[in-house]
Amino acid sequence: MLTSECANRIISQAAMAASQRELKMNIAVVDEGGNLKTFRRMDGAWLGSIDIAIKKARTAVLFSMRTGDIGTLSQPGGSLYGIEHTNGGLVTFPGGELLIDSIGNIIGGIGVSGDAVENDMMIAKFGAASV
Amino acid sequence: MLTSECANRIISQAAMAASQRELKMNIAVVDEGGNLKTFRRMDGAWLGSIDIAIKKARTAVLFSMRTGDIGTLSQPGGSLYGIEHTNGGLVTFPGGELLIDSIGNIIGGIGVSGDAVENDMMIAKFGAASV
Amino acid sequence: MLTSECANRIISQAAMAASQRELKMNIAVVDEGGNLKTFRRMDGAWLGSIDIAIKKARTAVLFSMRTGDIGTLSQPGGSLYGIEHTNGGLVTFPGGELLIDSIGNIIGGIGVSGDAVENDMMIAKFGAASV
Amino acid sequence: MLTSECANRIISQAAMAASQRELKMNIAVVDEGGNLKTFRRMDGAWLGSIDIAIKKARTAVLFSMRTGDIGTLSQPGGSLYGIEHTNGGLVTFPGGELLIDSIGNIIGGIGVSGDAVENDMMIAKFGAASV
Repeated sequence: MLTSECANRIISQAAMAASQRELKMNIAVVDEGGNLKTFRRMDGAWLGSIDIAIKKARTAVLFSMRTGDIGTLSQPGGSLYGIEHTNGGLVTFPGGELLIDSIGNIIGGIGVSGDAVENDMMIAKFGAASV
Repeated sequence: MLTSECANRIISQAAMAASQRELKMNIAVVDEGGNLKTFRRMDGAWLGSIDIAIKKARTAVLFSMRTGDIGTLSQPGGSLYGIEHTNGGLVTFPGGELLIDSIGNIIGGIGVSGDAVENDMMIAKFGAASV
Repeated sequence: MLTSECANRIISQAAMAASQRELKMNIAVVDEGGNLKTFRRMDGAWLGSIDIAIKKARTAVLFSMRTGDIGTLSQPGGSLYGIEHTNGGLVTFPGGELLIDSIGNIIGGIGVSGDAVENDMMIAKFGAASV
Repeated sequence: MLTSECANRIISQAAMAASQRELKMNIAVVDEGGNLKTFRRMDGAWLGSIDIAIKKARTAVLFSMRTGDIGTLSQPGGSLYGIEHTNGGLVTFPGGELLIDSIGNIIGGIGVSGDAVENDMMIAKFGAASV
């Protein structure tokens, strides 16, 4: 189970990794039920990324999949076209990763938004690595 | 201006005060524009209070007033009856407090939800006191 | 028909009346179709009143009635109880007035929000008087 | 900080530039928190552009970027595909510009809608130039 202590550590690690790269990120952690556990908006980070970070974390958990993987299926003509409009809004581009504990259970998700999606994904992975 | 460092300190202080009293709280901090800055759900805290904590913090900032003060005016027959349904949803019972800096400027709001409203308000005030 | 020139004059007059009384208001003018025509948020006015001012103006036009009059009918037990939840959200406390031209036609509505509802209504009437 | 006086001047300049070219525009100005400050719908301007103008101004501020730049990334197959569905709705085609003060700070955004996007963008730039 995702504890508050673990969620805080994940966000601190992700924020430190972002800070070292001079990236300004919104970072959200949700539990295995997709409900928000911890959130941090770094100084100067985009306001529009608050919602995106939370939705990325939530989207990953809702489908047990990283967001970018869903995005490959939700393009025009794809098998999940339009899925973004379900569940009160999903985000299907990269930056949402699963949080997996030492025995392989999904305990939540992390969503990062604030820069190019490659950077968002990199920072999300840093966070996920510190579970 | 509300920095990330300040927002983290506010939430840590509020969470510590809650923990000492064995209260399980959702704690949200928003900036002076009403946008989410930092959020923490303590272990075991109500899931339904995620949205309430965020809306309390936001409501306080939107009207430069603690939430409970609005609630006295929004009762049936009151001058602001129904105001809760504006702005995408407001919360007008106690637990939302303003964050005010040393020279008297409003720099944001804190919202706490997870227990009786008296306790929510008490913890919110602990947070606001550590600006 | 409500022209842009007329809407600007209404808002300028309302803002001047507010300013003379040291009131900080959000002022919205909608046309006879209930669609936003002009809006002004005075410096320091409540952010939460943006939505309320617009909804007051719209509510008045949607029912050809000042908002406070609808509010007397929408209380618990009243004949319009719950009407606030229709039309994407209405506001039924005072501060929304009709704009009526010299031959008695309704050409739009004005909504004012930012202070006690008595003051909101007073400023709205100043605006409406300068059609 | 974006004052009401400045916002009015921006909208007046944009409206004058539009009028000289016989363009009928909706023009919105939001502050640095993305909250509506001033709005004007010119006579005869499209009703459907009220929402678009406001969302353009808001989108620019939320991502510190002109709206058209986001649009190049949000196409099918692009890295931000589907971003329009976040934050309660964004607009990612041209016509939303940042308002930047003399020392380089973002103090808000302007959104213009009512004609071809090239014209929307041109008028938005006229407005932004009069900060």
